[in-house]
Amino acid sequence: MHFEWMNDIELVDHHCHGVLEHDLDRAGFEDLITESDRPGPVSTTFFDTQLGFMIRRYCAPLLDLPAFASPEDYLARRAELGAAEVNRRLLRGQGYNTLLIETGHRGDEILDPAHMGERAESGVAEVVRLERIAEELVESGVDSSRFRVAFSAELDSRLRTAVGVKSIAAYRIGLDFAAARPAADEVDAALAEWINATRRPGRLNDERVIRHLIWEAVDRAVPIQFHIGYGDPDVDLHRCNPLLLTDFLRLSRDSGATVMLLHCYPYHREAGYLAHCFEHVYCDVGLAINYTGAQSAQVIAESLELTPFHKALFSSDAWGAAELYCLGALLFKDGLDSVLAEWSQRHGWPEDELRRITTMIAAGNARRVYGLDDKGENG
Amino acid sequence: MHFEWMNDIELVDHHCHGVLEHDLDRAGFEDLITESDRPGPVSTTFFDTQLGFMIRRYCAPLLDLPAFASPEDYLARRAELGAAEVNRRLLRGQGYNTLLIETGHRGDEILDPAHMGERAESGVAEVVRLERIAEELVESGVDSSRFRVAFSAELDSRLRTAVGVKSIAAYRIGLDFAAARPAADEVDAALAEWINATRRPGRLNDERVIRHLIWEAVDRAVPIQFHIGYGDPDVDLHRCNPLLLTDFLRLSRDSGATVMLLHCYPYHREAGYLAHCFEHVYCDVGLAINYTGAQSAQVIAESLELTPFHKALFSSDAWGAAELYCLGALLFKDGLDSVLAEWSQRHGWPEDELRRITTMIAAGNARRVYGLDDKGENG
Amino acid sequence: MHFEWMNDIELVDHHCHGVLEHDLDRAGFEDLITESDRPGPVSTTFFDTQLGFMIRRYCAPLLDLPAFASPEDYLARRAELGAAEVNRRLLRGQGYNTLLIETGHRGDEILDPAHMGERAESGVAEVVRLERIAEELVESGVDSSRFRVAFSAELDSRLRTAVGVKSIAAYRIGLDFAAARPAADEVDAALAEWINATRRPGRLNDERVIRHLIWEAVDRAVPIQFHIGYGDPDVDLHRCNPLLLTDFLRLSRDSGATVMLLHCYPYHREAGYLAHCFEHVYCDVGLAINYTGAQSAQVIAESLELTPFHKALFSSDAWGAAELYCLGALLFKDGLDSVLAEWSQRHGWPEDELRRITTMIAAGNARRVYGLDDKGENG
Repeated sequence: MHFEWMNDIELVDHHCHGVLEHDLDRAGFEDLITESDRPGPVSTTFFDTQLGFMIRRYCAPLLDLPAFASPEDYLARRAELGAAEVNRRLLRGQGYNTLLIETGHRGDEILDPAHMGERAESGVAEVVRLERIAEELVESGVDSSRFRVAFSAELDSRLRTAVGVKSIAAYRIGLDFAAARPAADEVDAALAEWINATRRPGRLNDERVIRHLIWEAVDRAVPIQFHIGYGDPDVDLHRCNPLLLTDFLRLSRDSGATVMLLHCYPYHREAGYLAHCFEHVYCDVGLAINYTGAQSAQVIAESLELTPFHKALFSSDAWGAAELYCLGALLFKDGLDSVLAEWSQRHGWPEDELRRITTMIAAGNARRVYGLDDKGENG
Repeated sequence: MHFEWMNDIELVDHHCHGVLEHDLDRAGFEDLITESDRPGPVSTTFFDTQLGFMIRRYCAPLLDLPAFASPEDYLARRAELGAAEVNRRLLRGQGYNTLLIETGHRGDEILDPAHMGERAESGVAEVVRLERIAEELVESGVDSSRFRVAFSAELDSRLRTAVGVKSIAAYRIGLDFAAARPAADEVDAALAEWINATRRPGRLNDERVIRHLIWEAVDRAVPIQFHIGYGDPDVDLHRCNPLLLTDFLRLSRDSGATVMLLHCYPYHREAGYLAHCFEHVYCDVGLAINYTGAQSAQVIAESLELTPFHKALFSSDAWGAAELYCLGALLFKDGLDSVLAEWSQRHGWPEDELRRITTMIAAGNARRVYGLDDKGENG
Repeated sequence: MHFEWMNDIELVDHHCHGVLEHDLDRAGFEDLITESDRPGPVSTTFFDTQLGFMIRRYCAPLLDLPAFASPEDYLARRAELGAAEVNRRLLRGQGYNTLLIETGHRGDEILDPAHMGERAESGVAEVVRLERIAEELVESGVDSSRFRVAFSAELDSRLRTAVGVKSIAAYRIGLDFAAARPAADEVDAALAEWINATRRPGRLNDERVIRHLIWEAVDRAVPIQFHIGYGDPDVDLHRCNPLLLTDFLRLSRDSGATVMLLHCYPYHREAGYLAHCFEHVYCDVGLAINYTGAQSAQVIAESLELTPFHKALFSSDAWGAAELYCLGALLFKDGLDSVLAEWSQRHGWPEDELRRITTMIAAGNARRVYGLDDKGENG
């Protein structure tokens, strides 16, 4: 690090998930360190990626191995220590003060927020996934005539503890959805179609219903996280450009809701434009930091071109593997340190100003916009 | 600077505007240093941006303050000196040889070209905004049956002194407009709709009319500036991608007109492709240099990937605040210096070649394409 | 170079073309060092570009001239040595082990694969262009009723020696084509339209026919190269975004075919996403390395953000001028060296790992996916 205080910066991770805590074989582990949903070609390994190299570089020593231990040695040592111990070693000591955990993706397989807080020795708060709440209601037997009332009540109930919501509209319908609030009868017709379609309706893919959920969140003036950009092969990445939200941002500007653009890569410059121009928009490059590894400093720098320093957020977007927490924090601090050092050297930005904006990006902005106290809701 | 001569480079700013010369309160000043049209969230300031940091770093000392004076001290000193003195201090000494001033945006609030020339001790020439000329004709009572003749005469008249035109089609209709020249009767029908729509027709938003204006400019074989990319929340940024002009560029290739792609961020690589492939296309990263601050060196470097060195231009796109003139020049020279020093160090590009291409980009290319003499039209 | 072994790295150029071997006047040479199809403005030269500077820097000494010899001296010396000698000097000594030569573009003007192998002292293998095979069949008199059978036989025949195919769908129809295999009767109707259109049907521009050719290749489970991104003014660059292939990639995933995304600039990050997520997708930044010159290190770095190291390929995309071979190799090695040195310095990546992934990207990945032996098919 160029700046000693960077090691002591506290982090509010405004978008993350739980980790798995069972033993993993090689295929199972490799599946957690890629956004692909398939193994790579024969004779290749996802350890030969930016993320894989960083795991060997930085996580191996935390498991008492030399840096760049082989994948085989790494996984053997991981099994030897056991998942709970590995999780503790990798989650602690990285500066996590508060985790805002989104539980909507395979929530029954991962540690719940309370256990995550224990493993990371951090505060925790919850972010709820709009589409998942809707699906759960339908799974529990709510029919289309009662859905809107039931969803409204359920969302209110969840928001008594949750600090925000998330939408995966990017995955389900693309971000080129119609911006306006859909009419109630239009929503009801769509609900009937979805719920009656099959005996087990499953995945919510209807644009009108998803728009309804989003506008319900807008009405509650809460932080709304949107998946943006890079993800798994399910997304049409060109339909995950945050600029496609422009009309929605115009319509939601005066609602009191705030909009959190998550990950954003490779559209992080576009996200910065929106965070610059719209007073209720924030952004991060969470997922991209882990997956671009040695290049994450450049990605961070680019994301701080137009994004005001009071609008940039930190997230790890970690799911499943504790390595993603460890490296999400480590690479964020290392990358920001490197970027600020260069700017400072070239333009004489003073160290106290660097520290001030680092604190804002690492924790302060999230605390302000999510209304968090120190150590989170339950810390 | 790595190269001493960089400090003495003369600049032709091929796209800029006038500055305000009345005293500004904090809200008024902050409004000038963002592309947002609203204040930021409570307790935040636009001084916490790339541009804000650079104002405190480089402009404060020009007002006799220490670098990184607080925003409060900066604005107090600004008020104490008075707007005219601040404008002189910030406009002079940056190497501005000629300003090509576009007067179509809130032209009655800002200094006119003659006063700008005095404040900056530079030559000046005018660039006229097509849409504004059209709106002024309609405001003055021209009806749809006389519009085409009147516009043609007015444009000829303006171009007796103006050195080029600008279109803000990006703002009004997006760059995905039909490329071809619209038929006369189609234009007349559109004019009738626009002009008769209300008693006070106001803003020109009609695609057919705007295409007509652009083709009138093409007929006159003059430089035509297009707003591209980043701007205020009025634009749909994804509809400001310069690649959307590809068909228009094919159709206008043999006309004698030249096309100047302005700002271009975050589509500056795309703009470079067009400047590379189409002999009548030029580009700059004007606005982006100010707003990306410490990152502007990277943006400049990226814009010089495909853009031939004889096609790249300098602009500040300054409007309102003299700080944008000061930093537009300073960051351009600093960034280009840094980029060329790196390329030279890595690849042994000789210093006389660096100086030659710097002179081209800073002034020579604009002089050639706008047909300027040294010190501009009125210098 | 930071790493001595980088100079000795052997290259498999998985996408290149033949060079011309007749004397060139200045206009003829300048035409080869730009993607524009026209000369630049009066008084300008394409030597004032990234590529032009690198030719003077690195190629001039190989012709016994000082670095940065003038364009005039360079071309005079080129003529003096003669094209065959120039080709030998520029093609040799750069580490080319195997050239995968695509012969479909003006194939009668350039050296054939056997002569290229002699000039470069390398192995060679052929890649065939789908659209050109179809056009040749029609030129030879095949009518629409016999086309599908004839094409199938011809493709099988070519693939007895060729190691892959290429499609220029990007140029002809854009990448936003319908992903699915077209029905036989639909193809036959399209063929009849195309072939009967004129006495000399010429260029194949029909979407249904081109989709048919591509799916014929998919059926053969071979590597399929796609032109992506940057090219000459014939392309609509915004319709060359590789993300437009997403549905096609989903449909072709289980076919055994592999998809090679060529060049990709400025969509190389998007290409990296596809190579990351789809197990049968690979990518390079071939053409962009030559044309972005001193910036190619950054382009290489960006392309290695999401692309797994076992999915990145090397190509020069050289056509016509031997300078493009020389610099394609030289700038690739120099850029990768510089990028790896920085990553290694910042993150302690060990040198043996750097060498291992360099070998993969430079040659090993191509050998695996094209099924090459050392020194190619004919080496």
